Amino acid sequence: MTATADHQTFDQTTPATTLSDALAVSPRVSDDDPVFALHRGGKIALEVTSPLENRDDLSLAYTPGVARVCLAIAEAPALAEDYTWRGNLVAVVTDGTAVLGLGDIGPAAGLPVMEGKAALFKHFAGVDAVPIGLATKDVDEIVDTVALMAPSFGGINLEDISAPRCFEIERRLQERLDIPVFHDDQHGTAIVALAALENAARLTGRRLSDLRAVVSGAGASGIAVTRILLAAGIGDIAVGDRKGIIYSGRGDLTSVKADIAAVTNSSGLTGSITEALAGADVFIGLSSGVVPEEAVATMAPDAIIFAMANPDPEVHPEVAHKYARIVATGRSDFPNQINNVLAFPGVFRGALDVRASRVTEGMKLAAARALADVIVNELAPDHIIPSPFDARVAPAVAAAVAAAARAEGVARR
Amino acid sequence: MTATADHQTFDQTTPATTLSDALAVSPRVSDDDPVFALHRGGKIALEVTSPLENRDDLSLAYTPGVARVCLAIAEAPALAEDYTWRGNLVAVVTDGTAVLGLGDIGPAAGLPVMEGKAALFKHFAGVDAVPIGLATKDVDEIVDTVALMAPSFGGINLEDISAPRCFEIERRLQERLDIPVFHDDQHGTAIVALAALENAARLTGRRLSDLRAVVSGAGASGIAVTRILLAAGIGDIAVGDRKGIIYSGRGDLTSVKADIAAVTNSSGLTGSITEALAGADVFIGLSSGVVPEEAVATMAPDAIIFAMANPDPEVHPEVAHKYARIVATGRSDFPNQINNVLAFPGVFRGALDVRASRVTEGMKLAAARALADVIVNELAPDHIIPSPFDARVAPAVAAAVAAAARAEGVARR
Repeated sequence: MTATADHQTFDQTTPATTLSDALAVSPRVSDDDPVFALHRGGKIALEVTSPLENRDDLSLAYTPGVARVCLAIAEAPALAEDYTWRGNLVAVVTDGTAVLGLGDIGPAAGLPVMEGKAALFKHFAGVDAVPIGLATKDVDEIVDTVALMAPSFGGINLEDISAPRCFEIERRLQERLDIPVFHDDQHGTAIVALAALENAARLTGRRLSDLRAVVSGAGASGIAVTRILLAAGIGDIAVGDRKGIIYSGRGDLTSVKADIAAVTNSSGLTGSITEALAGADVFIGLSSGVVPEEAVATMAPDAIIFAMANPDPEVHPEVAHKYARIVATGRSDFPNQINNVLAFPGVFRGALDVRASRVTEGMKLAAARALADVIVNELAPDHIIPSPFDARVAPAVAAAVAAAARAEGVARR
Repeated sequence: MTATADHQTFDQTTPATTLSDALAVSPRVSDDDPVFALHRGGKIALEVTSPLENRDDLSLAYTPGVARVCLAIAEAPALAEDYTWRGNLVAVVTDGTAVLGLGDIGPAAGLPVMEGKAALFKHFAGVDAVPIGLATKDVDEIVDTVALMAPSFGGINLEDISAPRCFEIERRLQERLDIPVFHDDQHGTAIVALAALENAARLTGRRLSDLRAVVSGAGASGIAVTRILLAAGIGDIAVGDRKGIIYSGRGDLTSVKADIAAVTNSSGLTGSITEALAGADVFIGLSSGVVPEEAVATMAPDAIIFAMANPDPEVHPEVAHKYARIVATGRSDFPNQINNVLAFPGVFRGALDVRASRVTEGMKLAAARALADVIVNELAPDHIIPSPFDARVAPAVAAAVAAAARAEGVARR
């Protein structure tokens, strides 16, 4: 990753720690390490919820009784949501191309993250979830494979699939399926970032429409955060990648970046992210570049900084606090952790509860609003977003998402 | 299904109860019916086996700790079996084309059976299992879809996929994958039928090589039972379909039936199944035809009858007992139930325990032998096969399958 005086590199597709760097100090695999000990045998298991102790039990749960349930569903397919686990079940699907900050490590190596996701779905919102790692990176094959297994599930959570492929995969799957398809790296991040920004604005006596934001990183989360902030009414927003600010007419723009250019950057900035920060109210970091302190110092008063690169934020909180009113990161060891777990369990809980056919923009905005509102009476500069362990979160998000789904006519219950 | 004087129809692909017949008296869907009440919400759920109560828990089970496990697997892929649930996980895969006796009802309507299967895997052998219903009947699409999701699993159990497509699907998947691929309708039935026949022979003072058998039904289970009996050394065996006994040179044989013709029917029978029963020692029914009493009466002394069509056996036990020494059916309300649950949990338990790359013929024969041996000291005409609830079964089958896998060099642990 090269840095020059004018152009910082902030492309989120460059992992903060490269795989080869990480393998150079490869972990010693031993169950003396509590991480490996905890992971032995995996973090999830199947649970049987019906008795199977004797012939009578078997005749209800299996043959001949089960045939009646099959026939009922054959006649009325929606009954599958009532009489199987599908109505509560999400597939956590990856191709292993963008796992955490490790990059393209493949589907098997991505399974521990997918299992962790499934465990979080179940723990925080009672949503059943199954990890699915796919042995292909081809967009058509990914779309076809997920579409063909879709009768087994009530929803699809796409995870750790690299940009820009993830945008097309999500779009095509949602077109093809009548169950929610949600790429959490995009929309979970976006929902939580929006909630945090809403509260940061509240706390500093402003509205979103008063704010000018700069986003570094035009990958999955950078694009999705930008889109949700636009939908929520941000005053002005510009996005940068490793070449600098994205603007209409810049050469070599992917179609996703060209689309973003068309709806952002009303000031017409064309330089680096560093330059764009001058006078900006909000910096949102979703890349792996470092923002020099001098640039942070040029931001507007009462600046808001969300430096979300993991493990090394683009601006270290100590530096950020010298210039910003409110600081958030992606890390659990600083206040204001922007953690997707604040969104995805409640989003799917709400969507599944009303059998929504998709997750709409309105449902995402409602999720962000509900998430922000959980602590609206407890706001402080180091408390603009709930703790992941705040038990009010998932139910509040779920209720708001369900209500929004009904309001928008995408609910089937 | 037509019957004539000379040719009975015994094609297993004709369901005993047609879907339209069944729908004509469609079930009243109500949770007053204990079957529906039991099925509400499904019969399985996800269980979280790692603590997730606080930040420390999350830092081990999720970021940043989980990254170490991902890196370890990226470097040494076999570690996925140690550090995810995959090493204990089977996909129960259907396209819904041959669900129970209901025929082609589709993947969603097949889910209650797949869930039941998953519940039985877990209950009887501690094997985790996930139902997968596929929205296609195309053989290529089924093979590709399962192969592409295979990184998520330790084994594949194919279920309720119609013949003859099931043979090609299983073969091609096993060629492509290095995890076990096992179509239970074929091999589970075959293993249990062989075990029952071994004990029936023992009890009547004979060996398999002394016996001449007639199999009605040339679908998945009929073909597989025939193949395993040949491998086990049956004296003579002939298979019939709805047109009569299958013999080399008969017109319109599928390639599967032509293969079977080449290795069976050494007497060169060409007539009906009824005619073939004259002087036969064993009748194995795996179809939906009725065998008239007059034909049963022509069987050899000390006849053995396994009439396994569900719900109506080809020969009613009352009739069978007039002529046969030993009678078995597929039903739980008669003695000697030939129930696949006696095989598939232990087979996968053993295969997964040693990380077998496939289920070989030797492993299946070992499974049958171990199953028969469980009750070798308790044999009686109404006890030639263990009860599904005999706790000795799954461990014995698993141990034998694991040992056979190692002996054949397909084990990786």
